[in-house]
Amino acid sequence: MLTSQIVGYLAATLTTASFLPQAILTIKTRDTDGLSLSMYSLFTMGVFFWLIYGIYLGDNAIIVANTVTFLLAVSILSCKIYNSFFKKKSD
Amino acid sequence: MLTSQIVGYLAATLTTASFLPQAILTIKTRDTDGLSLSMYSLFTMGVFFWLIYGIYLGDNAIIVANTVTFLLAVSILSCKIYNSFFKKKSD
Repeated sequence: MLTSQIVGYLAATLTTASFLPQAILTIKTRDTDGLSLSMYSLFTMGVFFWLIYGIYLGDNAIIVANTVTFLLAVSILSCKIYNSFFKKKSD
Repeated sequence: MLTSQIVGYLAATLTTASFLPQAILTIKTRDTDGLSLSMYSLFTMGVFFWLIYGIYLGDNAIIVANTVTFLLAVSILSCKIYNSFFKKKSD
């Protein structure tokens, strides 16, 4: 395997895996005050387009990485939307 | 331009741009309680490796997108590290 391929896989694994601890923290604490709604909206759309791009190219690595990231991003975004629009403020 | 290329550029623009509102929110409010330290540590490392990958491939799109994302991710991570380890708790 080429060094560039190893670096690419390492990069993809890290950026994909990074959303797991954020999703766990958000689901556990339900604290989304510090999370940007714009960020998670744009990011979730972006990851969806990465997924479409992977399907176009028939590239399994892009498809798998972005399916995982998409599911994690959607779970974080859902908590943020719920807290922003449906939850009664306690203060 | 191929449809797949347009989808790829759209995906890259959205996922890169998404970190701008998060960085602005974090720098303005300094509220990092809902941000995962593990996420931003892994993510920042991952984006760094994407940058190295882009340099290996000589791909300017990957280099530019990941340089921007790296700077935004580092600014968010810095606020989180400061709040986690150096700031006296007010409560």
